[in-house]
Amino acid sequence: MTLKVDINCDMGESYGAFKIGNDTEIMPYITSANIACGLHAGDPVTIARTVKLAKANRVAVGAHPGFPDLMGFGRREMQLSSEETKDYMIYQIGAVQAFANAANTELQHVKPHGALYNMAAEDAKMAKSLVEAVESFERKLIVFAPSRSELAKNATRAGLKVAYEFFADRAYDSQGNLVSRKEPKSLLTDPKHVAERAVQAIAEKTVAAIDGKILSIGEVNTICLHGDTPSAPILARALNKELGKAKVKIAPVGTFL
Amino acid sequence: MTLKVDINCDMGESYGAFKIGNDTEIMPYITSANIACGLHAGDPVTIARTVKLAKANRVAVGAHPGFPDLMGFGRREMQLSSEETKDYMIYQIGAVQAFANAANTELQHVKPHGALYNMAAEDAKMAKSLVEAVESFERKLIVFAPSRSELAKNATRAGLKVAYEFFADRAYDSQGNLVSRKEPKSLLTDPKHVAERAVQAIAEKTVAAIDGKILSIGEVNTICLHGDTPSAPILARALNKELGKAKVKIAPVGTFL
Amino acid sequence: MTLKVDINCDMGESYGAFKIGNDTEIMPYITSANIACGLHAGDPVTIARTVKLAKANRVAVGAHPGFPDLMGFGRREMQLSSEETKDYMIYQIGAVQAFANAANTELQHVKPHGALYNMAAEDAKMAKSLVEAVESFERKLIVFAPSRSELAKNATRAGLKVAYEFFADRAYDSQGNLVSRKEPKSLLTDPKHVAERAVQAIAEKTVAAIDGKILSIGEVNTICLHGDTPSAPILARALNKELGKAKVKIAPVGTFL
Amino acid sequence: MTLKVDINCDMGESYGAFKIGNDTEIMPYITSANIACGLHAGDPVTIARTVKLAKANRVAVGAHPGFPDLMGFGRREMQLSSEETKDYMIYQIGAVQAFANAANTELQHVKPHGALYNMAAEDAKMAKSLVEAVESFERKLIVFAPSRSELAKNATRAGLKVAYEFFADRAYDSQGNLVSRKEPKSLLTDPKHVAERAVQAIAEKTVAAIDGKILSIGEVNTICLHGDTPSAPILARALNKELGKAKVKIAPVGTFL
Repeated sequence: MTLKVDINCDMGESYGAFKIGNDTEIMPYITSANIACGLHAGDPVTIARTVKLAKANRVAVGAHPGFPDLMGFGRREMQLSSEETKDYMIYQIGAVQAFANAANTELQHVKPHGALYNMAAEDAKMAKSLVEAVESFERKLIVFAPSRSELAKNATRAGLKVAYEFFADRAYDSQGNLVSRKEPKSLLTDPKHVAERAVQAIAEKTVAAIDGKILSIGEVNTICLHGDTPSAPILARALNKELGKAKVKIAPVGTFL
Repeated sequence: MTLKVDINCDMGESYGAFKIGNDTEIMPYITSANIACGLHAGDPVTIARTVKLAKANRVAVGAHPGFPDLMGFGRREMQLSSEETKDYMIYQIGAVQAFANAANTELQHVKPHGALYNMAAEDAKMAKSLVEAVESFERKLIVFAPSRSELAKNATRAGLKVAYEFFADRAYDSQGNLVSRKEPKSLLTDPKHVAERAVQAIAEKTVAAIDGKILSIGEVNTICLHGDTPSAPILARALNKELGKAKVKIAPVGTFL
Repeated sequence: MTLKVDINCDMGESYGAFKIGNDTEIMPYITSANIACGLHAGDPVTIARTVKLAKANRVAVGAHPGFPDLMGFGRREMQLSSEETKDYMIYQIGAVQAFANAANTELQHVKPHGALYNMAAEDAKMAKSLVEAVESFERKLIVFAPSRSELAKNATRAGLKVAYEFFADRAYDSQGNLVSRKEPKSLLTDPKHVAERAVQAIAEKTVAAIDGKILSIGEVNTICLHGDTPSAPILARALNKELGKAKVKIAPVGTFL
Repeated sequence: MTLKVDINCDMGESYGAFKIGNDTEIMPYITSANIACGLHAGDPVTIARTVKLAKANRVAVGAHPGFPDLMGFGRREMQLSSEETKDYMIYQIGAVQAFANAANTELQHVKPHGALYNMAAEDAKMAKSLVEAVESFERKLIVFAPSRSELAKNATRAGLKVAYEFFADRAYDSQGNLVSRKEPKSLLTDPKHVAERAVQAIAEKTVAAIDGKILSIGEVNTICLHGDTPSAPILARALNKELGKAKVKIAPVGTFL
């Protein structure tokens, strides 16, 4: 059986005159675009353009909702009620869905952004609110989540499809958690190394933690690239090359999950 | 033939702890709710609650998009490009559509808010952008517009349905334009008088301008009530009573247009 | 020696067309106004008008900075860095100071708002950042804080003046903490009861907790009224009356601390 | 007599994770920094850092207030009332003043941003509101304005100091107005050419319009550089070199006006 994997990247994070990312350079190398929805990044014009760019590159589009915190780029924890979490999600998914409609394409997935993603990975209540939002909006949407996370568990329990995500360019600690971005070696930058980690994660379902320990990480369906680093296009190319050499087929997760 | 008319009101204009309007009191007396979409008013929790409240009252829901100007409540003119206008519309319609989906109901209409409505009435370029937004999102949506406005003309030309709107509680000048809110007698507050104007507008297609002149106003499909005045519920009741006496049937515009 | 106390109230919490509070009705009964600074509430026009209204009523003005969370009215916890906390404070204090300048008056105090106040009461790091902001801006400003809080301790340690605050219309638990607003009996509404609690707090330095236990609460310099309840003006009058009967002099805290 | 000129540049236009400009590279070559104030760009942390960076480079700091339009970067016209214009200015100047205080330095000037600058150049009512804001806040602040503009006239009439500004890297039309940024040749990019235009403007008080016509432009006190172009640092260096060769002394405008 051919191994398959999706490559996803956060896209459309600019906001009017404020530019972030190398979307046009990276788009050719990925298969799923997580599109910022306006509350932590991504104004409507940026969303519209990013959806069209994704479509032109045959990249599947997903909503990338975040906390309503433009000043903090959605990276700061906020204490929301369940109702707030759920409704903020529906609002954002709906906004991106509208541009998918307008471009005659469909939403494939939902991936929460930044602190919302991290909190939903560990906080069962927040995970439940996110899942309820997806359920009430459209049950066909695939939820991107770390394997074994509260978000993955809640989505599976609700009968939603889950794509297990691996962070090829981020260090893992010995518990299998991502090392905080504030730590020095949290971000891996050597393209070949990152690409080899990805291949190992997909083929062997393992990763080397920051202390050298080999961790079992379960199934991997999608690999996350971070588009806001200058080296992202180089990384994207290396990833495509190494996955090709390892006979791993790269395709939007919606085509094989 | 029975005369029919819709009564619409701006709803869901609260924003978190900031409360505006008497939505629960007015909802029973209207047939179409124009729901603020988040950029000039209306946070996601408010939108969600308002859609549910409308549905419970068998009131049709519409999107009420505005300028991205919370501080000015969307009442200040902004110079946007055509691309910005179009994409800001799609974003907002999509967000409200999402809550309609989640509540198992459908969007009936789109009515631009405040300065966006006024500019689109007179500015052909802006009207065109609004119409393109509706076309690319969903051609079934009814556009609310003053008769003879650029917005009405552009929507008709594009083959969209248009509901001609009459402002029962606002004074008209002798040219048929609304008297500015900043003028002393711009807002009519006597419930019986307002209701009688509405009946006359529907049955006779005329209105008395502020100088007494009788104006021909063309077809009226929907009457606008302003929900942010303390007397709005009283007005709403009077309007229902007078229209009933005049044998005008009140129903959501989507049922008879 | 005459007992003296200040009465403070959050003011200027409207935001453009979004109106909150009964500022004009309450202003005559208070001696210190905590003026929202724009990030959780309070647009510049509101700040300008509120400063003038305070001055006309001989009420001292203070800055009431909050989290950058308009949608949540600054009532939701946010995880900020020390640099962010400090700079968000300086920004907000400076903005209100500007209107004090423009009105030929001076800032008397700083009182953090909502979740920022609650977090600074318990979190030493956040308290320290707030205190550093005040120190770097203007050491003469009085910091409003609950007695024994981290904020009070840090401000005292830095040599700043602290006004100890008592919440006359909020229930205390047996540990001396405020009962959460989400609990049913957290808000006291009987004007006479609230006023008597205030007199007891000032004169005897005690308060009855929600379970009846008498708590020692230390010195009280300022009593907080909540202006966003319909009964606030009635409460304010009752408080003035009872304090008068008890021969407690009411004056801005800056005049006696 | 030695000719003197100031070089100003918009600084601190980043917003949290959204980065704009090359502040650290350009700061050594300028003498006045126009610091964004939070409404169109510039979060509090950015303001704080930019004020410190300016001080470390002996660059004078000024407030650079704009429209409350983050999504449009303050470049879109908005119709504000006089009260709104004035209070939005005071708010923003005060916020930057606070960081100047905190860094033990002083505000030198005020330069409106983007559409606010352009509107105030032509619209007497808006110019008057801006001037009233400066007057009520601090009469010592120097107002940056194009010569002959409504802003310059109103500021002069009010007895405020005005620094006449020349845009070295922007094309002028034959009427002496800036050619719109949307036009192809509106932005001049050849460093030597830009620098020579600056020298000519200062020494001869003339500039060549886009059609070749030589325009008399009156006194020039400060030259504006645009920091958001990649070539800005190169331009800044060229400008310093050419002005040096022409024996024009470069200094903050507050030292010689």
